[in-house]
Amino acid sequence: MQAKAEDFFFSGLNQAGDTNNDVKSNVTTVNVDQIPGLNTMGISLVRIDYAPYGKNPPHTHPRATEILVLLEGTLYVGFVSSNQDNNRLFAKMLYPGDVFVFPIGMIHFQVNMGKTPAVAFAGLSSQNAGVITIADTVFGSTPPINPEILAQAFKLDVNVVKDLEAKFKN
Amino acid sequence: MQAKAEDFFFSGLNQAGDTNNDVKSNVTTVNVDQIPGLNTMGISLVRIDYAPYGKNPPHTHPRATEILVLLEGTLYVGFVSSNQDNNRLFAKMLYPGDVFVFPIGMIHFQVNMGKTPAVAFAGLSSQNAGVITIADTVFGSTPPINPEILAQAFKLDVNVVKDLEAKFKN
Amino acid sequence: MQAKAEDFFFSGLNQAGDTNNDVKSNVTTVNVDQIPGLNTMGISLVRIDYAPYGKNPPHTHPRATEILVLLEGTLYVGFVSSNQDNNRLFAKMLYPGDVFVFPIGMIHFQVNMGKTPAVAFAGLSSQNAGVITIADTVFGSTPPINPEILAQAFKLDVNVVKDLEAKFKN
Amino acid sequence: MQAKAEDFFFSGLNQAGDTNNDVKSNVTTVNVDQIPGLNTMGISLVRIDYAPYGKNPPHTHPRATEILVLLEGTLYVGFVSSNQDNNRLFAKMLYPGDVFVFPIGMIHFQVNMGKTPAVAFAGLSSQNAGVITIADTVFGSTPPINPEILAQAFKLDVNVVKDLEAKFKN
Amino acid sequence: MQAKAEDFFFSGLNQAGDTNNDVKSNVTTVNVDQIPGLNTMGISLVRIDYAPYGKNPPHTHPRATEILVLLEGTLYVGFVSSNQDNNRLFAKMLYPGDVFVFPIGMIHFQVNMGKTPAVAFAGLSSQNAGVITIADTVFGSTPPINPEILAQAFKLDVNVVKDLEAKFKN
Amino acid sequence: MQAKAEDFFFSGLNQAGDTNNDVKSNVTTVNVDQIPGLNTMGISLVRIDYAPYGKNPPHTHPRATEILVLLEGTLYVGFVSSNQDNNRLFAKMLYPGDVFVFPIGMIHFQVNMGKTPAVAFAGLSSQNAGVITIADTVFGSTPPINPEILAQAFKLDVNVVKDLEAKFKN
Repeated sequence: MQAKAEDFFFSGLNQAGDTNNDVKSNVTTVNVDQIPGLNTMGISLVRIDYAPYGKNPPHTHPRATEILVLLEGTLYVGFVSSNQDNNRLFAKMLYPGDVFVFPIGMIHFQVNMGKTPAVAFAGLSSQNAGVITIADTVFGSTPPINPEILAQAFKLDVNVVKDLEAKFKN
Repeated sequence: MQAKAEDFFFSGLNQAGDTNNDVKSNVTTVNVDQIPGLNTMGISLVRIDYAPYGKNPPHTHPRATEILVLLEGTLYVGFVSSNQDNNRLFAKMLYPGDVFVFPIGMIHFQVNMGKTPAVAFAGLSSQNAGVITIADTVFGSTPPINPEILAQAFKLDVNVVKDLEAKFKN
Repeated sequence: MQAKAEDFFFSGLNQAGDTNNDVKSNVTTVNVDQIPGLNTMGISLVRIDYAPYGKNPPHTHPRATEILVLLEGTLYVGFVSSNQDNNRLFAKMLYPGDVFVFPIGMIHFQVNMGKTPAVAFAGLSSQNAGVITIADTVFGSTPPINPEILAQAFKLDVNVVKDLEAKFKN
Repeated sequence: MQAKAEDFFFSGLNQAGDTNNDVKSNVTTVNVDQIPGLNTMGISLVRIDYAPYGKNPPHTHPRATEILVLLEGTLYVGFVSSNQDNNRLFAKMLYPGDVFVFPIGMIHFQVNMGKTPAVAFAGLSSQNAGVITIADTVFGSTPPINPEILAQAFKLDVNVVKDLEAKFKN
Repeated sequence: MQAKAEDFFFSGLNQAGDTNNDVKSNVTTVNVDQIPGLNTMGISLVRIDYAPYGKNPPHTHPRATEILVLLEGTLYVGFVSSNQDNNRLFAKMLYPGDVFVFPIGMIHFQVNMGKTPAVAFAGLSSQNAGVITIADTVFGSTPPINPEILAQAFKLDVNVVKDLEAKFKN
Repeated sequence: MQAKAEDFFFSGLNQAGDTNNDVKSNVTTVNVDQIPGLNTMGISLVRIDYAPYGKNPPHTHPRATEILVLLEGTLYVGFVSSNQDNNRLFAKMLYPGDVFVFPIGMIHFQVNMGKTPAVAFAGLSSQNAGVITIADTVFGSTPPINPEILAQAFKLDVNVVKDLEAKFKN
């Protein structure tokens, strides 16, 4: 089947994602699922919207480095390096036009520090970067991870873990 | 030397590039030269500004696929496939929020079709994508390519080629 | 400088790592830092020891897939898939001779279910796989992540987060 | 289906390609389309014939570096570096037994400088390197690129461009 | 079809392979054929058993570097570097807990030096590393390589080669 | 230091290599050691000369697939597949203009079947492919491999092995 221009095209990133949710942020992903022409190309794109005080909570991309540019608002961003680098926090306040890089696999987050919405775009070095939201993955998996395991790992009472697993249950 | 947050940071992409030039467009590049933390990461970012009727003339990126999102204005974009695919033109009119992909090595262009400035951001699948502007490279190299070679290749009179080489001389 | 046999050699993996610690497990890593001949080779090795009821708490390897073989003991192991796959838990009870794979970047864990020590070896698809222990990275970074950010992300009271950050402080 | 010796074999490169064409040169390609055993192998081969004064006009390979060896004749060859290197021309006169490298994605050409045919072989670092002949791609695409775009990019009168597009029309 | 835990699981590596054969050693391979979840993951695992004085004869892995850890016994191991490095032998006596690396494509071997069985595990940097046992491949191919070719290459009488080919015939 | 045309150039492949040696063949290599511009480019080139009845004895390239084109003479070529494919011989008689592929890491050979010299060129998918001549590596390493190991592996009398090691000693 012959490729056509539409196979390299997507529309709609001018529209803010719906931030009416728990974290008050929204990621709109444009990867190989939306654009077949990205197959084998090693790149994709996202738009991220943040309501006032909205957060993109700690997460990783298992197959991509992310380069983010802030278009509107004020964003506090950071990633934590791996154990070998002593889990150092690399953080920065971003203003419009600022760019920040989150290296592949590192846990990172963004927080809207202002009273107005924030908007960012980001490129990712994979046609299918993947997202692992830490809290949802650890406390909200299906089925849940044994609470004893998490209680010890996170130094939490087992009942607190059970409570978290109930809250994060899909 | 220990890495720090600034090694993953760049600022200034909120400012329009200077489009007061021949092509009336400007590309601001954020790659490993600006952000050392991009080293080995396989990704970089650009902001592209287009004055009214400004053009980003036919060019290639020898080491990257590009995914572009239009923020403001109206852009006519396209790439031409390789000889094996019969040099077909894949073109599209883009409006704000539209995304288009230019596969690695393909000759592509963007043209602002409107009376107002246009602005786009693009991710590239290399820390150092490279840019080869076709006309400048073919007719404006240092030293110039022998005009006879170009005259035959481009089916132009050799004096036209000499004239072009004078115009494109750096 | 000419390479020699010692550049491809390491000794000591017959000795159990010290599991007298909070998690009652220990990972001994043999990568390019120990064996210079692994440079560019895309592989490394670890020995993991687990005291009775010891745990290798939830963690990721940002640059490697892991293939583990259990030598002694009984191990409950699992990883959680990414958001796109609905954070499903892939878990299994392992007995001596069992093998399990943890795909690159996925959050995974191992727990010794028995009254005796457990021992496993694992190959990793990188000369320098990296380790990100989730709890330590999220709650024990230097400096700490703002507790408000973590409180909302983990649906915990901010004072619980502050308490966790104190516990995980290096 | 079991592989056999024929899957790794091709014949006929002893025969000169037909140079009775506009550019008086001919490229015979031996890639994964001719030899199925090249699949995933990252290499292919071409024979290039040049009639007296024949030219292999400016072109790129979007997915491969080329290493050429001249067997017969005298060849003037060159490539132009990217914008970042100021579009410098790297050129050389080649005699039998000379070798020249054209890095991935760079615009390059070869010209037979002599009264006798020239013959070269070249290896390419892809099972499917692709070819983009610049003039044909820019002025001969299907459908044609808007002449106004090309006129400005190439500093040509729009009627000259229209004339070129008529000449290059497939 | 949705992946499940069994797609990342294999059992049985606690059992010694059958060393009742010519070389008195046995390699049990766990790669993508046994574990579908290893697809694209760039890693696999083997268990190697050696009867007393058993040998894993000179062989190569065409697509992987190997990192071996000795669990039991005493193993003499080595690889020979390529022609450019003057075919130097890198060899070492290994005791339990010792690790040795065999770089991709290098001819290597292991020999049990003791009166008791030896056991090793090894990681390989490919989901499908391949094995080429030198003697079997050279003297036992189907159909056999012309004995004249091998006689000259190995500086053996052609009748000795014919005899070897008879011995190695599958 | 700025690159120049000479960094992409090599001369002398018009001259036959000296085949006055044991195997009556000669390989002239043009890789990154001869052409610095090949660095990171994943390709190199060789010229192979064969005296009448000369042989390029069984060898492997640990880091490259080879695509060979025969220019003059008659060549019998072959490679043997890996153990998993039952060490099948893929062989072919080549005449001028014939092309054959030797996949990465496979043991392969070429033999001049005629009374006149043969000449071939080959591309290799690495800037530094490496060569491992089987007989020299197995029987001629420095220091030699223990003859007992080779005797058992090759089903030869240990005195025959000692004799071979003396013959292949550098």
